[in-house]
Amino acid sequence: MLPEIAKLGHIALITPDLKKSLWFFSEVLGLEETEVVNGTHYLRAWGDFEHHTLSLTQGEKSKVNHIAWRTKRPEDVEKYAELLTKAGTDVKWVEAGEEAGQGRAIRFKLPSEHTFELYFEMEKTQPGQDRKAVLKNQTYKAWRKGTSPRRIDHVNLTTSLDASIIHNYLIENLGFKMREYIDLGDGNIHAGWLSVTPLVHDIAVGIEHDAPTPNRLNHLAYWFDNAQDILRAADILSEEGIEFVGPGKHGISQAVYLYVKDPGSGHRVELFSNSYLIFEPDWEPIKWTPEDLRVGITYWGQDAHEISVDSTEA
Amino acid sequence: MLPEIAKLGHIALITPDLKKSLWFFSEVLGLEETEVVNGTHYLRAWGDFEHHTLSLTQGEKSKVNHIAWRTKRPEDVEKYAELLTKAGTDVKWVEAGEEAGQGRAIRFKLPSEHTFELYFEMEKTQPGQDRKAVLKNQTYKAWRKGTSPRRIDHVNLTTSLDASIIHNYLIENLGFKMREYIDLGDGNIHAGWLSVTPLVHDIAVGIEHDAPTPNRLNHLAYWFDNAQDILRAADILSEEGIEFVGPGKHGISQAVYLYVKDPGSGHRVELFSNSYLIFEPDWEPIKWTPEDLRVGITYWGQDAHEISVDSTEA
Amino acid sequence: MLPEIAKLGHIALITPDLKKSLWFFSEVLGLEETEVVNGTHYLRAWGDFEHHTLSLTQGEKSKVNHIAWRTKRPEDVEKYAELLTKAGTDVKWVEAGEEAGQGRAIRFKLPSEHTFELYFEMEKTQPGQDRKAVLKNQTYKAWRKGTSPRRIDHVNLTTSLDASIIHNYLIENLGFKMREYIDLGDGNIHAGWLSVTPLVHDIAVGIEHDAPTPNRLNHLAYWFDNAQDILRAADILSEEGIEFVGPGKHGISQAVYLYVKDPGSGHRVELFSNSYLIFEPDWEPIKWTPEDLRVGITYWGQDAHEISVDSTEA
Amino acid sequence: MLPEIAKLGHIALITPDLKKSLWFFSEVLGLEETEVVNGTHYLRAWGDFEHHTLSLTQGEKSKVNHIAWRTKRPEDVEKYAELLTKAGTDVKWVEAGEEAGQGRAIRFKLPSEHTFELYFEMEKTQPGQDRKAVLKNQTYKAWRKGTSPRRIDHVNLTTSLDASIIHNYLIENLGFKMREYIDLGDGNIHAGWLSVTPLVHDIAVGIEHDAPTPNRLNHLAYWFDNAQDILRAADILSEEGIEFVGPGKHGISQAVYLYVKDPGSGHRVELFSNSYLIFEPDWEPIKWTPEDLRVGITYWGQDAHEISVDSTEA
Repeated sequence: MLPEIAKLGHIALITPDLKKSLWFFSEVLGLEETEVVNGTHYLRAWGDFEHHTLSLTQGEKSKVNHIAWRTKRPEDVEKYAELLTKAGTDVKWVEAGEEAGQGRAIRFKLPSEHTFELYFEMEKTQPGQDRKAVLKNQTYKAWRKGTSPRRIDHVNLTTSLDASIIHNYLIENLGFKMREYIDLGDGNIHAGWLSVTPLVHDIAVGIEHDAPTPNRLNHLAYWFDNAQDILRAADILSEEGIEFVGPGKHGISQAVYLYVKDPGSGHRVELFSNSYLIFEPDWEPIKWTPEDLRVGITYWGQDAHEISVDSTEA
Repeated sequence: MLPEIAKLGHIALITPDLKKSLWFFSEVLGLEETEVVNGTHYLRAWGDFEHHTLSLTQGEKSKVNHIAWRTKRPEDVEKYAELLTKAGTDVKWVEAGEEAGQGRAIRFKLPSEHTFELYFEMEKTQPGQDRKAVLKNQTYKAWRKGTSPRRIDHVNLTTSLDASIIHNYLIENLGFKMREYIDLGDGNIHAGWLSVTPLVHDIAVGIEHDAPTPNRLNHLAYWFDNAQDILRAADILSEEGIEFVGPGKHGISQAVYLYVKDPGSGHRVELFSNSYLIFEPDWEPIKWTPEDLRVGITYWGQDAHEISVDSTEA
Repeated sequence: MLPEIAKLGHIALITPDLKKSLWFFSEVLGLEETEVVNGTHYLRAWGDFEHHTLSLTQGEKSKVNHIAWRTKRPEDVEKYAELLTKAGTDVKWVEAGEEAGQGRAIRFKLPSEHTFELYFEMEKTQPGQDRKAVLKNQTYKAWRKGTSPRRIDHVNLTTSLDASIIHNYLIENLGFKMREYIDLGDGNIHAGWLSVTPLVHDIAVGIEHDAPTPNRLNHLAYWFDNAQDILRAADILSEEGIEFVGPGKHGISQAVYLYVKDPGSGHRVELFSNSYLIFEPDWEPIKWTPEDLRVGITYWGQDAHEISVDSTEA
Repeated sequence: MLPEIAKLGHIALITPDLKKSLWFFSEVLGLEETEVVNGTHYLRAWGDFEHHTLSLTQGEKSKVNHIAWRTKRPEDVEKYAELLTKAGTDVKWVEAGEEAGQGRAIRFKLPSEHTFELYFEMEKTQPGQDRKAVLKNQTYKAWRKGTSPRRIDHVNLTTSLDASIIHNYLIENLGFKMREYIDLGDGNIHAGWLSVTPLVHDIAVGIEHDAPTPNRLNHLAYWFDNAQDILRAADILSEEGIEFVGPGKHGISQAVYLYVKDPGSGHRVELFSNSYLIFEPDWEPIKWTPEDLRVGITYWGQDAHEISVDSTEA
């Protein structure tokens, strides 16, 4: 049986201004801190079930350390290690505990140099009594602070390479399915939205022609239950004096969005709501062409077009 | 490779007052009609991708004809036929076209006498130009009429039998996973919420001790993008003079709900929003006990407890 | 020119458990504290423009000290003193500064023994820089904590007397207009909703036959911009383990509501949204009769009927 | 006693494409038609209490025929006629019935040539039984079609003259109060928001330097109960292929907005929600300066700046 990826796990960010990034992610966005180990802060949203979905570590410059995916079965990590090695990918093992809460994992680079991590074991850390939800199926009490998203949603990468190479790598080696894509008719797939779950995308990968490095992070996204939560987030960000793009609605993915940069690291976060789920097993990827690209990028609201080519190093 | 179920497909309802049921589902709920074939009306929500998620047929008395599930692969229907037969279940074939839009399918009964259908092939019928969405990833324009849900969500069954028997049948024969359940400590699992998708439940099965038949439908559910859409639905139903229970929020599934009966057939529909998704591959089913059952049933809002034992024949 | 009342000013509450009441109003509801003077805590919502709209003082038992109304003009306080005295009402002066922020005021009792206060002068106290809104037309940053209502809305009183006596007193002596009322056809006006502003009611007064005192507080209300804010409040209250009635929508006033008691004092607060405004100068009061009373009290949602006869001393 | 204006009554629009304008206002916006008299269509929102708040008449070119205000008392129309004449304004009488539903009225021009109408008498026309609300305090059932606003809100005018002249005329002759204004420090008041009600503005008047006529309509506005209704409107307009600006939130007035032009006439409509109410009798007008103008115009969302100088003839 082939190994499978269950879900996006977490994104490990390096920030040159940890204090400011912590203020942004904890107080403004409203993530909860699971624990701090060796200077790395492990964060998650109130509805995330894993030990962390984001980590912040002080570093010389802003960077993505790795993007982690949880496998479906414990043995899938080992299986992926074998398959990827066989496919010519250089695989490195990360020992259990090297990352707080996490068991043995592997790391490797996409053809675009983005670092991926695959793991299965993760400690089921519970919040303290004062923050723990009354609801048995929810981690923390919601609405404790900041914009208060429910859970991590997806990651959006860009590369100076041909995006199709990355799409194909994700599809062939990791089991992703293409859900929607932009085909400008010039022989390139400009961008693709892919998932292993019924979410429209767990990951998107697009071309960013003039990027200084091949491995770029356009944004990571946290999910909100209601579109109006995005408007509330807009109020909160405005009062904190933090600029953002949105609110708006993408045609692609049908997401109600708002894009904001962590003022500590410059990494961009999408506050994300609505969208749709794909349960159909014979889904035909939605193709967006030059004729309907405008609707695809910005169905309504503040235009999201310009941010598609503004990224940080991943 | 074992066959798998991809998703809940549709519910085929028999109504003694087709005209009133059509008014309710089309005009009040706001479902769209795909086509009418041999007196059966095939309906779906604006965001449903399949040919239909509900069908209405005139009959002597209110009943569920069958509950249909789509398989992951075309060959899974045949595979399920074999496995189920081997497991002692009586399997009947339904020829392609017998149900509009649908390919060859099988039907069989759960131990509780509920009729299930499994199919893979389904015509990809597009709406006419005036109702077709501008969005390429959406079937119909949204908000055209009535409460306007996005898509089918789940089905909730009750039985006079031991519910665990049905839970186990679903788990062992059809690949469902238990997500949440009520254990009153009396040796019975009172009710279970199960899914094949990351939805908390595609199906729930509970005990209804004094039910006149073992196969009961508690409700079927349609999903809305935002909790406020449920409040808007409450306005619309009130103005139509249709009684309902809710709005409220279940602890179990975290759903914001409103329950309303089709005045034509008496079948109950849940208007459903928010809730949460389960991506964790090692999910431990949430157990609700007598101590926390009140929060589980009604976290807030109009109590949903009484409706748990009021069902129609399935 | 006759004196006029401009608006509901504030409600001064006595609580036997100041600490718990402060936790409830400041942390759970999310009111801001302007200042503490002589043990009295002066609170207001983020969008209130006055020095305070609520005050909390420790006392032996739960009670309303007074309900204050701002006059349209400075001289109206003196004019009301004269007119009320002439009408046989006993008027007492409250000197400037006796209540923090407030100028010279009068106090008097309604025929039902509810204590009213009339004032005009009120200090325009600004919040500290960290809490001050970026928006120049808003007092505090919104969404800082708790349910976060925008402003005070109305007060709802009950009495063991004939409610019409109080309605007439408010209309004849204080310039209120009747907006909606319940006439059960037994010769009594069961309850009336009255206002000096375009709000459907700044005050409601209803009969509570078996009340131990003639002067009762059914509730005071704070206003939220959106119905969904009420659902968010329901989550917050549920997580704090505080019981409440709602959400629901009254026919009368068209308010989306949620009723919750301060666990420190037992005084009830309505979290209130939507509703409508009356700008018509020839408004004919809406009469609700036994035939439509159910819709009037609870258009939808958790029934608000039982709380109409459960009050605290005013 | 001086006459007073109670509220904005209606806007009478001339459209060169009546059919398209009717489609826009009736089907897309979702206004209800009270009646058609002599080719003029009289419309109102489901929560408007008057006979009409908008009228549409076919004409050679797009124009505002008049903007009507209801007086507080019947005799105020006559009193205004006298006072305005005395102040040098040319006043014309409009006989009862000349405009459907309306009693005797006067018309006159502001110094900017905008035509105002003042009336008191208006027929209380009820909707037919199928459209009438169950709620006794609401005119029509809500949510019947289109975006479905509750009521008319305000009108926004521009002029090539010094806006202060118009502000002063409104304040001195008609009793409006200044609520917020833009002072760019160049000796001009760029724009002012004024009201006779607790709404932040019933009318706004701004400078439009290069306007071809002195009397311009920037937009008229309809009000929605919830910010999310604005997002729903954005979906509906997008599916109809109608362009708009927004959603966004103004600092000035704190309105959540969306601006859309009637494709039949080019007249702009603001879909408007949230905002705040002013009950304080000693309100100090909020002054927006070059330093904070950006926040004043667009607190967040798609920039509304460009539309401030794009108007139709009034």
